[in-house]
Amino acid sequence: MLKTEILYFDSVLDAARSAREGYPSALWVLDTNTQPLFSSYFDTNDSPRVVLEPGEAAKNEHSVAAILKAAKDAGLGRDSVIIAAGGGVVCDLSAFAASVYMRGCGAVLIPTTLLSMCDASYGGKTGFDWLGVKNFIGTFYPADKVVICSEFVRTLPEKEFRNGMGEVLKHSMLASDDTLSVFLSENRKAIGERISAVTGEMIRRSLAVKKEYVDADPTETTGLRRALNLGHTFGHALESLGGLGSRSHGESVAWGCAMALKAGLAAGVTDPDFAVSELSLLASYGYETKGAVDEKDFEAYWSYVLGDKKKKGGQIQFALLEKRGRPVFMPLDKEIVRASVVKH
Amino acid sequence: MLKTEILYFDSVLDAARSAREGYPSALWVLDTNTQPLFSSYFDTNDSPRVVLEPGEAAKNEHSVAAILKAAKDAGLGRDSVIIAAGGGVVCDLSAFAASVYMRGCGAVLIPTTLLSMCDASYGGKTGFDWLGVKNFIGTFYPADKVVICSEFVRTLPEKEFRNGMGEVLKHSMLASDDTLSVFLSENRKAIGERISAVTGEMIRRSLAVKKEYVDADPTETTGLRRALNLGHTFGHALESLGGLGSRSHGESVAWGCAMALKAGLAAGVTDPDFAVSELSLLASYGYETKGAVDEKDFEAYWSYVLGDKKKKGGQIQFALLEKRGRPVFMPLDKEIVRASVVKH
Repeated sequence: MLKTEILYFDSVLDAARSAREGYPSALWVLDTNTQPLFSSYFDTNDSPRVVLEPGEAAKNEHSVAAILKAAKDAGLGRDSVIIAAGGGVVCDLSAFAASVYMRGCGAVLIPTTLLSMCDASYGGKTGFDWLGVKNFIGTFYPADKVVICSEFVRTLPEKEFRNGMGEVLKHSMLASDDTLSVFLSENRKAIGERISAVTGEMIRRSLAVKKEYVDADPTETTGLRRALNLGHTFGHALESLGGLGSRSHGESVAWGCAMALKAGLAAGVTDPDFAVSELSLLASYGYETKGAVDEKDFEAYWSYVLGDKKKKGGQIQFALLEKRGRPVFMPLDKEIVRASVVKH
Repeated sequence: MLKTEILYFDSVLDAARSAREGYPSALWVLDTNTQPLFSSYFDTNDSPRVVLEPGEAAKNEHSVAAILKAAKDAGLGRDSVIIAAGGGVVCDLSAFAASVYMRGCGAVLIPTTLLSMCDASYGGKTGFDWLGVKNFIGTFYPADKVVICSEFVRTLPEKEFRNGMGEVLKHSMLASDDTLSVFLSENRKAIGERISAVTGEMIRRSLAVKKEYVDADPTETTGLRRALNLGHTFGHALESLGGLGSRSHGESVAWGCAMALKAGLAAGVTDPDFAVSELSLLASYGYETKGAVDEKDFEAYWSYVLGDKKKKGGQIQFALLEKRGRPVFMPLDKEIVRASVVKH
């Protein structure tokens, strides 16, 4: 069980105040996209802050150094806090900086994207990209608080919204019961319209699933937490191939989940009723569930699969599902993968 | 209770083999002084290694980057290990690198100085100096194993030996019973001659005291672990003043412990019999127990004391002892400090 407290607010101002509460001093980290979202707070508050360039390119050692230097200049001590207000990049960088500042100061995250609300903010993974490898340098350092304000969901670009929904759908398959899945079926219209009360409830339920897996395996040592990689082996390889064009990470993961269901069916591992119902839920949210790799590209796709995660035995362990909430890890026959992912 | 296993060996080769055992791959970190100590191992083993320049100047972000880059080049995974073979600088840098490499790989320390054997190696503090502040960036990341080989004590320069003995004497005052103190009294000659069996036993007993405090407060949050700073407030201020000339950190700490005993006596806090016996033990090992600050320098000394640790209430909390193993933290009257530290 992580020490992280998860708090929910309707207003940005309340969220910002709650994030800051309880620390003698604070440094805020934002990016140029998220800073305007917090104007109601900063208009009356002159807190020291670092404003990064948005996007994955900023997820580097220079941004970490800028945060640490600003923390020193602001006189932060070990009992102070670094508050991240942004998406996954801002949260991962800030929490990393907090984990190494004077051997660890407070970390509070206010995720502003659906993806970081439902997924990245809870779990203690911090880090940045280095030498061309994603999240190569990092720590396990759970935030003191994750502050959720579903107001931010309303104004997300459609692409970013769909990016997060992919992970929500993944969580519905990993959940120990079908309440999230039923909620997603029954509220598709309100979710699409981003009614705050509905998306707020969806985020709660999605985070609860993430929490179950993380709390059971906080530092990814027993293997259980790896179930959260459902869809990622299939999805990453497609991203590497450039095969989904301009589609987002979350869309690749949703597609990867569909592939895991289909491959699990073919391998006789996955319960057919479960697979069919989840494939139609994915499709109802507009995600691709059919093969997306050209036959001529399959060898290249397969080599990306093999490169994705080098396992001890040299074999790729795919995350599959026997049924809802029952992940299994196993190698898959190349021909089963081919039949699932290739366009027909 | 930290997960760290402490292992003792007589031979360097056995120590090195034991450090390496149990990991699929390893990166060694040494400095140009300690590399020759391990020639018996490296003559028959071509393990990847990083060799740093010796000394505090190497305790920087460039050394960390060199270790992390070498770890990547050597293909280390999360189940691999970074093995430090050296003094405090090599151990702190290597353990920090291990704590952030892919969110944490194995860390094993083979301390080669008496100071790092008795003190720095156990406790999980890692880090490096940055922006002119010692250990400004760091983590709490306990090593998997600390491998002690008292053979290294035999060949230490006298200054380095005395550096470590200062911390051993400090531990004898913090111990819950007088076995270490009696051991030090009774074996002064054998310790001075560095008979391996005797120094080995001394290291065991010293580490046992450190372990008691660390295990009770692993991340220095309850305050108990701060007792290990006994003598440091007095000692650091003297180091800042340049007052002990060429004497080492351990000698400053030993002097600081003497000052804490004297100030505790003057403040009516410290048991007189205990203070007298410890002051004479310190003196018998050749450490300074008298005032060492010129009257004209006292104001400068006092300002260093005030700058040493900014506490929440703005007052310096000195670590003092009621008696053996009974630390207390309290402010001290400036005149009591003056009477203790000024030369008469």
